[in-house]
Amino acid sequence: MQIPAVLMRGGTSKCWVFDERDLDRCGLDRDTALLRVYGSPDPRQIDGVGGATSTTSKAAVVAPSGRDGIDVDYTFAQIGIAEGKVDWSNNCGNCSSVVGLHAVQQGWVAPRGEVTRVVVYNTNTGKTILQDVPTPDRRPTNAGDAMIIGVPFPGPRIELGFVDPSGAVTGRLLPTGRPQEKLTGRRGTVRATLVDAANPMALLWGPDIGLSGTEDPAAVDADAELLADLAEYRAQASELMGIAPEAASADTVSRAIPKLAWIAPAPDPAVADAAVRMLSMGRTHPALAITGLVAVTGACSVPGSVAPPGTDVSAGLRILSPSGVIGVRSETNPDGSLSAVFVERTARRIATAELEAS
Amino acid sequence: MQIPAVLMRGGTSKCWVFDERDLDRCGLDRDTALLRVYGSPDPRQIDGVGGATSTTSKAAVVAPSGRDGIDVDYTFAQIGIAEGKVDWSNNCGNCSSVVGLHAVQQGWVAPRGEVTRVVVYNTNTGKTILQDVPTPDRRPTNAGDAMIIGVPFPGPRIELGFVDPSGAVTGRLLPTGRPQEKLTGRRGTVRATLVDAANPMALLWGPDIGLSGTEDPAAVDADAELLADLAEYRAQASELMGIAPEAASADTVSRAIPKLAWIAPAPDPAVADAAVRMLSMGRTHPALAITGLVAVTGACSVPGSVAPPGTDVSAGLRILSPSGVIGVRSETNPDGSLSAVFVERTARRIATAELEAS
Repeated sequence: MQIPAVLMRGGTSKCWVFDERDLDRCGLDRDTALLRVYGSPDPRQIDGVGGATSTTSKAAVVAPSGRDGIDVDYTFAQIGIAEGKVDWSNNCGNCSSVVGLHAVQQGWVAPRGEVTRVVVYNTNTGKTILQDVPTPDRRPTNAGDAMIIGVPFPGPRIELGFVDPSGAVTGRLLPTGRPQEKLTGRRGTVRATLVDAANPMALLWGPDIGLSGTEDPAAVDADAELLADLAEYRAQASELMGIAPEAASADTVSRAIPKLAWIAPAPDPAVADAAVRMLSMGRTHPALAITGLVAVTGACSVPGSVAPPGTDVSAGLRILSPSGVIGVRSETNPDGSLSAVFVERTARRIATAELEAS
Repeated sequence: MQIPAVLMRGGTSKCWVFDERDLDRCGLDRDTALLRVYGSPDPRQIDGVGGATSTTSKAAVVAPSGRDGIDVDYTFAQIGIAEGKVDWSNNCGNCSSVVGLHAVQQGWVAPRGEVTRVVVYNTNTGKTILQDVPTPDRRPTNAGDAMIIGVPFPGPRIELGFVDPSGAVTGRLLPTGRPQEKLTGRRGTVRATLVDAANPMALLWGPDIGLSGTEDPAAVDADAELLADLAEYRAQASELMGIAPEAASADTVSRAIPKLAWIAPAPDPAVADAAVRMLSMGRTHPALAITGLVAVTGACSVPGSVAPPGTDVSAGLRILSPSGVIGVRSETNPDGSLSAVFVERTARRIATAELEAS
């Protein structure tokens, strides 16, 4: 018994993409079919297509959608490796980025210009994800010259759009109602945009306190005085955003939110527009997780924010992170409010296959 | 640009099988095409079908053969992972075992009964490999109930035959001309079959010196006195086989050959026929490498050898190794000389695909 599937790279993951209707037709329940074709349970997945690592044992189950305004329904599955279990409880950002490209390549969504927007509904989370997919000359493609961190080959540029990220925790994009606040501490006064997009974040204007946004993460983590100074700003931000009742209890209320990041103009404008470093749980984040990128982008989308002078995030911002440059972009509603934040990824079809399910 | 390929498990490896003619047609030289579809160089092979481990970054290039008496030509390639290089210098036993099954599944070799013999020529080594492939009801199959060590799923039983393994080093299957010799040392006198099949080996009759063939490898390796006693027998065998001029110089001439192994009846005849342990470079081998299995099988094929009483290796012998039971079998020429040694494997088609080469 064979099941059609397409192997795609999405960001820095690989996942097999299944048409929901093929899985339903195969006569096995979904978990049984997926475990067998991946070769699970087996720490090496040697008798199946699983790659024996968490980033290469993933599946996307997709189909044209019957929902209003939605092109594709998408369900993510993390396939157990040594464990004979399929986890349907979460979505995966990397795998999300293959769905739009796949839908265009399958002919489910017709190209609408040089770039085609695909509207994807993720059933795991109930969230809508926008995907801007290149369709040069109004044709599907599997090639492109975009590069991302962690993938040594170029591919089609996919812009992954998170819809309506404002106020996830506090209910408002700007919890204080103002595009800039001033935070004061031992290190001096720093301007900051306090924003709630995907996550609450205090985004500091680095140059006010001698930070360039290009600091070596290990050096920051080894500098106890700097970390203490930054914690002081974070605590004030927590109080101003209404997360902690007062700065003194910020850590007790949550060490995770608000995030703290700082931004500055990038050293080489030919390479990037802004340099950003972010702390997560008191340590420098080695890249900038999706939630961090969405918050920074949301902050920079606000007129009067601490976005570097001359930048326009609605036209795209190249952010220099500790592990390389990442492209982001914001979109606004007609009333000027933030409608979506886009993060750049690449995706590529690697193989089209029939998998043996027995 | 797409290249057809079939993903197969062979033994405990996975390899992609390419039709030589498809590779030649694709317009890229072979190395360039293979490196691109595997996603190399990249330690994660994240943009290709490579599995980022040496046992999952292998290729078999095959085609129907024009050579007399040969069904299939087969070339093995080890695809570099972090390194952008393809190594064509060796063959791989595990990948060898997929070629016969593939040839039958592709219709290159017609089923001839319940089992079909496929004659494969390996271009890397210039050697012929026989493959006995199940063809129940004279039809190709991809299913079977055979199990091997290291693979938790059943599959078709493939018997991999090494043609004419006798006298690889010394020119004769029995370098001393006799099926048994007696070796004497501190531990007493032990009967032994001194054989040269794939490799020279001294196969001791374990019970003569208190060995059961079921010893724990770690315990053997920790027992300096036992290792010294066994080295004494190996040295005598080396002299008798004409490898070292005298026992005293056996280690100086070669620590690798002859191999030393001991055999005894298996404790549970329902599970296995013989229990074997082998030393390799003075340490207990955790399984029994192919070369060890071929030598043991060659020894047991000799009338009057130390094969356990009542066993008949031409009908098949189940050998208990430290990592599990392995099936072997010998075949003889009409004159009674050894023509081939077969080792049991399983193989299975996992997927049939078109790989993106750009």
